Amino acid sequence: MPDSLPIDPLHSALFTDMYELTMAQAYDAEGMDQTAVFELIFRKMPGDRNYFITAGLEDVLAYLENLHVTDDDLAWLRRQGLFLERFLHRLKSLRFQGDVYAMPEGTPVFPGEPLVQVVAPILEAQIVEMLVLNQVHFQTIAATKASRVVLAAAGRDVVDFGSRRAHGADAALKVARASYLAGATGTSNVLAGKVYGIPVFGTMAHSYIQAHDDESQAFEAFARLYPETTLLVDTYDTINGVQKVINLSRKLGERFRVRTIRLDSGDLGVLARESRQMLDAAGLNSVRIFATSGLDENQIAVLVADGAPIDVFGVGTKLAVSEDVPALDMAYKLVEYAGLPRMKFSAKKVVLPGRKQVFRQVEGGRMVRDVIGRFDEKLTGEPLLQAVMLRGKRLPAGRVTLEDARRHALTELDHLPASLRQLQRAATPYSIEVSDALDRDLETLRRALQTSQLGQT
Amino acid sequence: MPDSLPIDPLHSALFTDMYELTMAQAYDAEGMDQTAVFELIFRKMPGDRNYFITAGLEDVLAYLENLHVTDDDLAWLRRQGLFLERFLHRLKSLRFQGDVYAMPEGTPVFPGEPLVQVVAPILEAQIVEMLVLNQVHFQTIAATKASRVVLAAAGRDVVDFGSRRAHGADAALKVARASYLAGATGTSNVLAGKVYGIPVFGTMAHSYIQAHDDESQAFEAFARLYPETTLLVDTYDTINGVQKVINLSRKLGERFRVRTIRLDSGDLGVLARESRQMLDAAGLNSVRIFATSGLDENQIAVLVADGAPIDVFGVGTKLAVSEDVPALDMAYKLVEYAGLPRMKFSAKKVVLPGRKQVFRQVEGGRMVRDVIGRFDEKLTGEPLLQAVMLRGKRLPAGRVTLEDARRHALTELDHLPASLRQLQRAATPYSIEVSDALDRDLETLRRALQTSQLGQT
Repeated sequence: MPDSLPIDPLHSALFTDMYELTMAQAYDAEGMDQTAVFELIFRKMPGDRNYFITAGLEDVLAYLENLHVTDDDLAWLRRQGLFLERFLHRLKSLRFQGDVYAMPEGTPVFPGEPLVQVVAPILEAQIVEMLVLNQVHFQTIAATKASRVVLAAAGRDVVDFGSRRAHGADAALKVARASYLAGATGTSNVLAGKVYGIPVFGTMAHSYIQAHDDESQAFEAFARLYPETTLLVDTYDTINGVQKVINLSRKLGERFRVRTIRLDSGDLGVLARESRQMLDAAGLNSVRIFATSGLDENQIAVLVADGAPIDVFGVGTKLAVSEDVPALDMAYKLVEYAGLPRMKFSAKKVVLPGRKQVFRQVEGGRMVRDVIGRFDEKLTGEPLLQAVMLRGKRLPAGRVTLEDARRHALTELDHLPASLRQLQRAATPYSIEVSDALDRDLETLRRALQTSQLGQT
Repeated sequence: MPDSLPIDPLHSALFTDMYELTMAQAYDAEGMDQTAVFELIFRKMPGDRNYFITAGLEDVLAYLENLHVTDDDLAWLRRQGLFLERFLHRLKSLRFQGDVYAMPEGTPVFPGEPLVQVVAPILEAQIVEMLVLNQVHFQTIAATKASRVVLAAAGRDVVDFGSRRAHGADAALKVARASYLAGATGTSNVLAGKVYGIPVFGTMAHSYIQAHDDESQAFEAFARLYPETTLLVDTYDTINGVQKVINLSRKLGERFRVRTIRLDSGDLGVLARESRQMLDAAGLNSVRIFATSGLDENQIAVLVADGAPIDVFGVGTKLAVSEDVPALDMAYKLVEYAGLPRMKFSAKKVVLPGRKQVFRQVEGGRMVRDVIGRFDEKLTGEPLLQAVMLRGKRLPAGRVTLEDARRHALTELDHLPASLRQLQRAATPYSIEVSDALDRDLETLRRALQTSQLGQT
């Protein structure tokens, strides 16, 4: 039957893959309750990307703090016929008691580097895999796409307009948040404004114009109610629409305080120039031009390079779904259990074993090199993974406001080498090295596994 | 500050764009409270798609039934300084009192055809735009991608494994539901199983194998706890892993009831064939082969055409984000207000004006033609838009179980012409015609708008 009750996956322990629960029961049955270390990494830099910007940690920590299995969940699990009472009893008292180390939201990250590290009894660390991946994977993709759009806009305002075509309701909110984190000025999404405190922007839709019998009359009615508003000029003909705005300014005289016109179709560069000339000629130099219409970072870069007189870019679908890179090869990998490093090496997809730290070297305000080392190494550079949760409780470093995370992101983006801040793939990727100690661990473990797992069948 | 309270966008009236609220207040201030008709359409068939399958209506109707503004929402809106008490008072008593006509979930749909039609006082119809688009756009994309995967699998089972890389939590649940709607056998997502009643499948992850010191020991422990389980064989070396499964069958004898092995890397066709031969030679003919690893419909079609002995496909990321078509040019358009047809025609993006109906002609069990006509026309063929909600209350046609919707979808997919059921773009698209009456309306309105809106500035 249709279920119209609120479903809150971000607070449900059942927002997990079934195999996490069957494996958890197996760990329990086998008495395997030692500490596991899982690391969230991605393997390859896709498409035109030169970096990713981490995001999503806030939701992960909120989920872990709240993790519990409800009586209703237990009753449902019992009916599946897969779980023993012993395990259901254990689930009833399940809480996340582990530690989390992570790069702060807004940190540039590169292939092979752990973004998040979960250190917990294996049952707890295993069960939360889906939530950690689901939230960090998408929010990282969205923040990264947004940061490219912001870089392309070169100081002009960027507003997230993507909610309607984001992949579902959670994605809409997270795109708004990730965009703001990465430097956007705000969002059109009212709920995101309320929940995250992000500035909310609204313009006007074609439907409003169309619902009136006359475009000029629609402009006037809206401007009387919202004197400093935005008027959408392209419902019937853009230039004609701009002329109607100018006519309105003459009619209203000093009461005319319209701040912006919006172009939403056609050749935006040509129309912006023509509109600017018309507005300026009419003495409306302070009226700004807002452009929308299937924009992404590449189109914005062309408009900016051409000197199109556009003051604000509204970016929707292509940002919201990260159209060119809608997914990333990100995984949550077991790297240590019971104090021993772990790895798989089928089909050459080798993941570095053991618990790791990333050391970032910055020279003259520019990032020059990351070294991935053992967690217990002391290497040159700033260690990026910080403790954000210990024994299930957030530390101050795990309670970061969105404004602080945004400041961090903008500072970090500023530290990127110029070649990585370009929209095209850099000729030389950012330098990622593996420490000698970690390299030796990899070889040692590879040889040991070859002997123990492949030598005998 | 971080907000870790449950956020439920699917039950929040603030899950809307700011301009919907400012326009709504303008309608209220101008005394515009007549009936509007908004239609949800998409304009172009993207990528390799030959059809789309509608989905998402259930969430739209649940949202509309529940629509209300909370006191907390009102307090927040008041603080924005944009809204008058008169309008806030109106919002306080806001309920959706309109009608909804829609194609049932699981219906093939083509460019220009309304999937959903909202007929309501303009304020109500305007405010719900984001939710209607956000849910139907993505779920339609997901159901369509899933239907292509199911077609490619040609009778083999397909299981949704995409939750971890779907765009957020809502998308994960909706991909599970849309996949099942379109013919998938089930999902790995436990919460989707609980909420939607979808069969839930689990296998085993590399982490489980790696947490054990020995792969054979891991297989045995898991098979003792879950005799009819799936064993993942590629952690260290696939063929070696299959041999360990065979060894286990010898050790356990009649107690060996493992149902499936899972391949997750390498050349799946070659490895499946080799594994099948080994299993058969060992008398394990009933053990099935489950394949995963970045699959999409095109890779599955190649494996099936090559006769790869794969029984189940687990499909993850590329399904969950609809990688090749992550967004669709779908819009929610005002087509009628106060009994008069409406349209915009800037930059040649003409939308057919007026309230419409789609008449589908089927001959010999195959769809042959759709005719888009005026809503009040009686044309040959089955009218696809049905009343699902009247005056804010669902009708029986608006209360469809997922199982019934799935049956409808599979029947409808069966009625598609063979050329549209192929994965490549059909040489000839499906035939969509516009009725003579609607065509005349378009010309009449175009001329009238040219005179009234463009003639005068």
